[in-house]
Amino acid sequence: MKILLKNGSVVNVFSEELERADVLIENGMIIGVGDYSDEQADKTVDIKGKYVCPGFIDSHIHIESTMLSPYEFSRAAVPHGTTAVIADPHEIANVCGSDGLRYMLAASDGLPVSVYIVLPSCVPATSFDEAGAVLSADDLAPFYSENRVVGLGEVMDYPGVIYGNENVYAKIKSAKEHGAVINGHAPLLTGHDLDKYISMSIRDDHECSSVDEAKERIRKGQRVMIRQGTAAKNLIDLLPLFDKPWCDRCLLVSDDKHPADLLSNGHIDESVRLAVKNGKSAVLAIKMATLNAAEHFRIPNVGAIAPGYNADLLILDDLDSVKVCDVYKNGNLVVENGELVDFSKPAIPKELENRVRGSLNFKPLSVNDFMFDCNERRKCNIIKILKGQILTEKIIDFIDFSENNGIDTQKDILKIAVVERHHKTGHIGLGFINGAGLRSGAIASSVSHDSHNLIVIGQNENDMLIACERIRDIGGGLVAVENGKIICEMPLPIAGLMSDEKADICAEQNENIRIAAHKLGCPDDVEPFMNMSFVSLPVIPHIKLTTLGLFDVDNFCLIPLFAD
Amino acid sequence: MKILLKNGSVVNVFSEELERADVLIENGMIIGVGDYSDEQADKTVDIKGKYVCPGFIDSHIHIESTMLSPYEFSRAAVPHGTTAVIADPHEIANVCGSDGLRYMLAASDGLPVSVYIVLPSCVPATSFDEAGAVLSADDLAPFYSENRVVGLGEVMDYPGVIYGNENVYAKIKSAKEHGAVINGHAPLLTGHDLDKYISMSIRDDHECSSVDEAKERIRKGQRVMIRQGTAAKNLIDLLPLFDKPWCDRCLLVSDDKHPADLLSNGHIDESVRLAVKNGKSAVLAIKMATLNAAEHFRIPNVGAIAPGYNADLLILDDLDSVKVCDVYKNGNLVVENGELVDFSKPAIPKELENRVRGSLNFKPLSVNDFMFDCNERRKCNIIKILKGQILTEKIIDFIDFSENNGIDTQKDILKIAVVERHHKTGHIGLGFINGAGLRSGAIASSVSHDSHNLIVIGQNENDMLIACERIRDIGGGLVAVENGKIICEMPLPIAGLMSDEKADICAEQNENIRIAAHKLGCPDDVEPFMNMSFVSLPVIPHIKLTTLGLFDVDNFCLIPLFAD
Repeated sequence: MKILLKNGSVVNVFSEELERADVLIENGMIIGVGDYSDEQADKTVDIKGKYVCPGFIDSHIHIESTMLSPYEFSRAAVPHGTTAVIADPHEIANVCGSDGLRYMLAASDGLPVSVYIVLPSCVPATSFDEAGAVLSADDLAPFYSENRVVGLGEVMDYPGVIYGNENVYAKIKSAKEHGAVINGHAPLLTGHDLDKYISMSIRDDHECSSVDEAKERIRKGQRVMIRQGTAAKNLIDLLPLFDKPWCDRCLLVSDDKHPADLLSNGHIDESVRLAVKNGKSAVLAIKMATLNAAEHFRIPNVGAIAPGYNADLLILDDLDSVKVCDVYKNGNLVVENGELVDFSKPAIPKELENRVRGSLNFKPLSVNDFMFDCNERRKCNIIKILKGQILTEKIIDFIDFSENNGIDTQKDILKIAVVERHHKTGHIGLGFINGAGLRSGAIASSVSHDSHNLIVIGQNENDMLIACERIRDIGGGLVAVENGKIICEMPLPIAGLMSDEKADICAEQNENIRIAAHKLGCPDDVEPFMNMSFVSLPVIPHIKLTTLGLFDVDNFCLIPLFAD
Repeated sequence: MKILLKNGSVVNVFSEELERADVLIENGMIIGVGDYSDEQADKTVDIKGKYVCPGFIDSHIHIESTMLSPYEFSRAAVPHGTTAVIADPHEIANVCGSDGLRYMLAASDGLPVSVYIVLPSCVPATSFDEAGAVLSADDLAPFYSENRVVGLGEVMDYPGVIYGNENVYAKIKSAKEHGAVINGHAPLLTGHDLDKYISMSIRDDHECSSVDEAKERIRKGQRVMIRQGTAAKNLIDLLPLFDKPWCDRCLLVSDDKHPADLLSNGHIDESVRLAVKNGKSAVLAIKMATLNAAEHFRIPNVGAIAPGYNADLLILDDLDSVKVCDVYKNGNLVVENGELVDFSKPAIPKELENRVRGSLNFKPLSVNDFMFDCNERRKCNIIKILKGQILTEKIIDFIDFSENNGIDTQKDILKIAVVERHHKTGHIGLGFINGAGLRSGAIASSVSHDSHNLIVIGQNENDMLIACERIRDIGGGLVAVENGKIICEMPLPIAGLMSDEKADICAEQNENIRIAAHKLGCPDDVEPFMNMSFVSLPVIPHIKLTTLGLFDVDNFCLIPLFAD
């Protein structure tokens, strides 16, 4: 059937004009742009006064961070005009390895948001960590033959690149041989080190936080991804990049986006809107969100309103509010007047589904697992959470183990444990944390970057035990416990990372568990689960806890609890 | 060895700036751009006051049209700063089929000019023509696995695209499946027909002769190749495309370039120079000649001065004259102070070389082959050459066969013959031509678009015969004969299209034979061999001669000689 969108203005990302033109669609493709008459179509839609714009592309997102399944993510994103994303399934791969990649490919097949995949380059993030899997260059290679795999995901191990780690090199070499785009992640790297890093054909970065940092990268041949996510918001600082000539080398990304943020503020539409609100050209911002992305990832026939391009397009009421009225994906109306047109869930092989859902594997725990075999007053290394940051600080202080085995709510010294949950190694890292503020109970989570072991903070060992066992029972998720009772929970049965629920339910559950943690005592200006989820990531300074114990990031080594 | 180009200004095609920066090169690659010191290199070259610019890329050329072998072509082109071309071996493929493609790949391997290949889409140009080969989609498909094959060459059969010719569709489908870029050729096509044509993912055009024509194509997602060749010169008419935003979607090409023109005026450097001379930005023109080309053809790490890019770069004295001082190819100095550093000829398999050189295959001819069996005065269809055009005009006039079998120098009515020369079919098309002007002798050529049969124009049949036999003897080329004697010749033994000689010899031979034809009577304002070479091309209006006889292009059918 031929559909004619008549009398609209086309956002032409090639000529950077608004063009008065009709758009003719057939078999999922745009086949004409110009003056067309009703007789040339089977159906005409009059869109006088409205704008036709290519569907938005998020050039870098971890879908797992939305806590939504790819299906529910697409249902939440497409009403915001997202018709494609470049997803790096780094989180699920750290839990499930190749199964995680297969799952994401299967679970995102045929969605109204095209999910292109970049293969996670850092599984595990470091060798000091017990992830669910190790993905070598050889493990990744077969996936390049998948149609939707377009690149190698953010190469975070920049010391490995600069100093020639052979595993990192093997992955980059293989990516180049497969003609894949190699994504970067090297915050604040500059000068000669940046040259070395980029020399490996690492052609983009999404970690820029200043215009100078971004311009150096663009001059050196990288495309800069301007990030506006839930945690990291760089767009306002990078506004000058929306001007020529920089905008031609920039893309728009979210990286990590939480469900409530996605629902209420939007997705890439939010970035475009924000740019326009700050005086930037809507046409150029849209180009950054569409054609620039498709050309960077060498995805043909995507990202523009032109003959031969996929009919992935948006009808916008105006270019100030960037309010998405209708969305066509492959020529099908998938959002009508802001309302989602329902579509079916992709079929996932049962066995694969079972493997991904059975990701919580740890030995039965007891209260003793959370106890130190010590009864004295000792000087200890303690993790201090910093408000609004994923950095931590190392403090050294005396802990009296004769009282509550060291827990001291007066001084906000709580217990923290990281339980290996992938291969039943029985490894449990145990330590003390300051800043979480719980005055009773425990909170626990199977989302814990980047290895996603089970992490728990508690005011008492029994609640910590109950929280961990509950997470096992629900197959992963976030839990808050008080006085032996589950007071709130958010199940994340897909690899312990993603929910089965709709975005609004997810957002509500996420909010409720946040409130529950605050009720247990977590200060208002600390994000309890977000902060906790980074306490186990041994690549972010300064002191972290892994399944093997305390880790000094600055010296890149394990350290003992006792500092005396 | 690390080479440091110190103190120069870098033409940065990403930021569109001139950037004060040193350039560090190692193992054929740029590994640093910025401030570097002598200690960081094994060798430092001080280029203070000069400019470092990426090597130029000709995005569309038929190397055969230079009449030079790929080796000699590269020797002539690299001093002009050309470090890569996208070559469409359409001519040799029409003579030698797949052997022609294999030959061009072998003969261009490892040259200082990287020769990327687009596979010729129109072999033969039409089914009304006897070419040396037919290349189907299946014949072309294996070549896509060759490293240097990047696309499908100009799809000239635009009626075939618009009306759904299955052979054309099969070639386009195959190209898309192989991720190849599809080149266009559709002069003056506009509106709905252009939409249909572009809908087949035909993503560029090099036939634009007006700004409006070019802008329509850019708006519809094509890149426009601004042509400045020997015959067709569009650059001045298209100057506004050197401005934003159009320049971002434009490339520079020569298409057809003769050896004398290449030597004396230059190549892509000439286009850049001409743009600058006409007030356009040198940096933007250079970007069109470098990065834009590499990105269009998805050739990674080529076309810019940045870490990880091939060290294909030019040292320019200034940006006005665009005078190329030094050329580095893969980090090796291949032109030093304007002088070529010699390099070896690629090895070509002997058997392949023999096949390509034995391309003149026709049955022994006699004078009778050029005689009409007629003795009366008859009304005839006659081809009229138009000055400065490749179009011809049909004239109808009386010819008296009783005198000189119809040849009438008074009225400038000469004989023309097209002798099938590939497969000894014995087919000879015979007719009359007006406008060539010979008052004696004959001129003949094995260069005759697009099938490259043997074409000969004569004032008498004996000289026509001698010219044809001489071309057989020398394995192809251009010949001028008078009174039974060869008065001038230019051997083109490679497929009857290309010379073994150096560019300067070729240019001289080409000039001499042109002069010889003028001495035989060809008017000053007619290019004898160039004009003749298009008389057999049945896709250019209005009347042509093929091996099967006169062809009416407007009605797309063979027509008889006699019009009474």
